[in-house]
Amino acid sequence: MPELTINYREEARALLKADAEKILRLIKVQIDNLTMPQCPLYEEVLDTQMFGLSREIDFAIRLNLIKESEGKALLENLEKELNILHEKAQKSS
Amino acid sequence: MPELTINYREEARALLKADAEKILRLIKVQIDNLTMPQCPLYEEVLDTQMFGLSREIDFAIRLNLIKESEGKALLENLEKELNILHEKAQKSS
Repeated sequence: MPELTINYREEARALLKADAEKILRLIKVQIDNLTMPQCPLYEEVLDTQMFGLSREIDFAIRLNLIKESEGKALLENLEKELNILHEKAQKSS
Repeated sequence: MPELTINYREEARALLKADAEKILRLIKVQIDNLTMPQCPLYEEVLDTQMFGLSREIDFAIRLNLIKESEGKALLENLEKELNILHEKAQKSS
């Protein structure tokens, strides 16, 4: 595969992973600061961020920078980690 | 510039333009079907779509697929065209 193609793909993957981690950090901060996960504003922020990321992933898939399965896995992983955070927060509250 | 780089850039530009046109079409359909532009749901749909497009554009800029100025121009153009649609709709209502 030509070098430049690989660079764009690696770069796209790195950006998407970084964005997913940013969402996770944002939610961690919210939970650590005792904002309730039941709060509608919290859910709205999370929905907006997840929508933004899914649009980026979709764009990368359409550009053939990542595979559809990779994009799906990235979102599913993030959702799994968010669920773990939620459960921890509910147990300790 | 290597051929592959140009392909990714052209493809990214084409995708973003197509997405902007899709928003414009969506709004045209809403106006033609007499859904009031003052309707909160209409504004929410538009906001969501604009946010999604801006995230795609931002992603393309960060990947160096388009210039920051290009991305800005694309959004500004879309906003201008949406304003024209709104004004027309208000005059004829």
